[in-house]
Amino acid sequence: MKTILLLGAGRSASVLINYLLQHAVQEQWQVRIGDTVVGHLQELVKHLPFAQAFVFDVQHAAQLSEETGKADLVISLLPAAFHIVVARECVKQGRHLITASYVTPELKALEQEAQQKQVIILMECGLDPGIDHMSAMAVVHRLQALGAKLLSFKSYTGGLLAPESDKNPWHYKFTWNPRNVVLAGQGTAKYIRNGAYKYIPYHHLFTRTDQLFIEDYGEFEGYANRDSLSYRDVYGLHMIPTMLRGTLRRKGFCEAWHVFVQLGLTDDSYLLEGSGSMTYRSYVEAFLPPASGAAQTIQQRLAQYLEIEEASDIMHKLAWLNLFEEIPVALASATPAQVLEKVLKEKWTLAPTDKDMIVMQHLFEYEWKGEHRELTATLVVPGDDTVQTAMAKTVGLPVGILAKLLLQGRVKQHGVVIPVSPELYEPVLAELKSYGINFKERDRLKEV
Amino acid sequence: MKTILLLGAGRSASVLINYLLQHAVQEQWQVRIGDTVVGHLQELVKHLPFAQAFVFDVQHAAQLSEETGKADLVISLLPAAFHIVVARECVKQGRHLITASYVTPELKALEQEAQQKQVIILMECGLDPGIDHMSAMAVVHRLQALGAKLLSFKSYTGGLLAPESDKNPWHYKFTWNPRNVVLAGQGTAKYIRNGAYKYIPYHHLFTRTDQLFIEDYGEFEGYANRDSLSYRDVYGLHMIPTMLRGTLRRKGFCEAWHVFVQLGLTDDSYLLEGSGSMTYRSYVEAFLPPASGAAQTIQQRLAQYLEIEEASDIMHKLAWLNLFEEIPVALASATPAQVLEKVLKEKWTLAPTDKDMIVMQHLFEYEWKGEHRELTATLVVPGDDTVQTAMAKTVGLPVGILAKLLLQGRVKQHGVVIPVSPELYEPVLAELKSYGINFKERDRLKEV
Repeated sequence: MKTILLLGAGRSASVLINYLLQHAVQEQWQVRIGDTVVGHLQELVKHLPFAQAFVFDVQHAAQLSEETGKADLVISLLPAAFHIVVARECVKQGRHLITASYVTPELKALEQEAQQKQVIILMECGLDPGIDHMSAMAVVHRLQALGAKLLSFKSYTGGLLAPESDKNPWHYKFTWNPRNVVLAGQGTAKYIRNGAYKYIPYHHLFTRTDQLFIEDYGEFEGYANRDSLSYRDVYGLHMIPTMLRGTLRRKGFCEAWHVFVQLGLTDDSYLLEGSGSMTYRSYVEAFLPPASGAAQTIQQRLAQYLEIEEASDIMHKLAWLNLFEEIPVALASATPAQVLEKVLKEKWTLAPTDKDMIVMQHLFEYEWKGEHRELTATLVVPGDDTVQTAMAKTVGLPVGILAKLLLQGRVKQHGVVIPVSPELYEPVLAELKSYGINFKERDRLKEV
Repeated sequence: MKTILLLGAGRSASVLINYLLQHAVQEQWQVRIGDTVVGHLQELVKHLPFAQAFVFDVQHAAQLSEETGKADLVISLLPAAFHIVVARECVKQGRHLITASYVTPELKALEQEAQQKQVIILMECGLDPGIDHMSAMAVVHRLQALGAKLLSFKSYTGGLLAPESDKNPWHYKFTWNPRNVVLAGQGTAKYIRNGAYKYIPYHHLFTRTDQLFIEDYGEFEGYANRDSLSYRDVYGLHMIPTMLRGTLRRKGFCEAWHVFVQLGLTDDSYLLEGSGSMTYRSYVEAFLPPASGAAQTIQQRLAQYLEIEEASDIMHKLAWLNLFEEIPVALASATPAQVLEKVLKEKWTLAPTDKDMIVMQHLFEYEWKGEHRELTATLVVPGDDTVQTAMAKTVGLPVGILAKLLLQGRVKQHGVVIPVSPELYEPVLAELKSYGINFKERDRLKEV
């Protein structure tokens, strides 16, 4: 009998919990699930002798220590900032840990102690980061084994709406943490292109998009993630001339989001004066220059300021959000970004009938036997409903599968690890296929 | 006999040192000048029995303590970050302090102890901040005494080139800390206009300028400083509907500087990869999108990206800086801002024959006896040469005059103070006049 401790059972944990409960009997697991609110979980597990749900507070050190001590493996889906606390406790007590979040320098610093204790801190095991690493490495290793020379690797991932739920002018709703969506891309995006480093400041990020077309799904656009460079080392692609990781949106999203960036609405670094008495309209007004020339209405003035057409898709998207209406903001002491998040939530919250969709595309170029070829690997995963979302599936299933492999003794690595070795990605990708999470590949001569 | 300890004797201290030495005999001062390099100063004071220059290190606590103990008044022209260390020592030992830098929250926290010890920490005594406060308060108090109602106050200051030295297409050279010029304006500018708060993000700051015309000197433009709001309290103008503080440049400067901001060249938050092997040209290239359409040369591509004319003043200014040339950057591990500073220093360093010029303009609007009037107060100070610069005069003289007033016992205030009361600004403004530092006022009906 092995005990799994799952910490954090929010919306994105639904599929993982199902996976753990479905495999518990055969794998001889005890599954203990801790979260701040567990009413719905206690209902779920009440007739299952191998599962318990309990109120858990990660800031309660004694509880964390006691629960970790009982577990063979800890899975943390807590907010990313808490992983380091859990990881330190795991290393201290010699317990394995799996998360779906990025390795941070603090976590990396546990490497030596984790090696000594022979435990694995297995990070970046969800969708992005997670499935992106695993699926990319499968292609990279295969091409390298053929003796191909990699010239370019671009990879885009987006959490979007399934076509049947895609009914708004932005072609977008929040399928993930809204705050992260509002703040996405801040800082400077760094990538490499034809051997030259490239830097895109935030205020240009949403104008410098790549266009993608995905069969049966149409047009998308991708903007660069902040860091595309450090993955050259992680993937063993130190010398690749072009490498870019990015985020996918439906065509037309980015030029409209660029308006928010230009105005300054995504700034989270200061509090607005008197935000409690603002309306959507006066919020926008606070970022506009005074009226000049023929521009009179707030729409005309915004359009003139940012040099966009008044009768454009962009302006239609803004108007659809009610940004020009006298609707109270009703948020005291808020940053511009917090107000924008509230405005967007009014329109971008998933309805009970909405389905989400994950789209991931890797674009490789490589040289092989004198040919310049391109290989595209594309994943599209639709959600089933608002619980079994595509996001919950693609985050939860790889975590669950890796948990199973680990407890079966099939993972030999120790230390702070991400799933880029065949030992890890091969069985995960194979099992994901059985859940319909499957990449379609196309490999052909590069068109010049 | 009173002892003055002057800490920091860099370029901007020349006029202050002259002032102190010239008044020392009559005022019965001993003047002790400490800096990291003092060769030139020892030459200057070697025949003066009332003055000494010595090597001083502010990070050497025992020396700071000993020197402060000998002084009746400390003047710090050290880099702003060191003022807090000096101020703590002054308060501890019950010594007065004068600086030309902004009050910080850390300094403000010394208020109570300074009151108890009956010492004054007199901050913001230079040009900007300094003369701006004093000259503005003189007008504000006069208008308030008349019963006028203030409607608007805008104030701009610039350290520029004197007309006879203004021979480059930017109409600008560094007359002050180059690093501060490169980083100027980062963050969000906040001001109030017609009772409404306004926010300008950095990436639009240099496009939202006010145009100013100054008789005999021509056209200028002003961009908003980061914080125009907190001075409402300091000036006792809590209810004023419009208030803005800004920085002056010659017309045309800001639209060209905006190119640097747009490209991301002023970013100081990350290191460029391989900056040591970059050229000016490849540095610019790193911030440009790939070639597309008809744009081929780097100049064409930059012009297309930022939507500027290829044959424009802006492009001429950039080319004049050699930004498109294969000149080695020769700076290892540099941020974009550090590279830009180096590029600019090649062209913007004052020549031995260059003269600088300070321009300050306050623009008031007020209501009085049913009239809507506007009052403009303008100061223009040319430099004499590269030592007696306008910057050194306008920073050094008010500090020197306030030191004299303080040691004459004519300053009754204690605590952390800035010069906004008549007790301080009246004698300073009067004595500044004798040095030719004099505001010209124009008061007339507001043109509608």
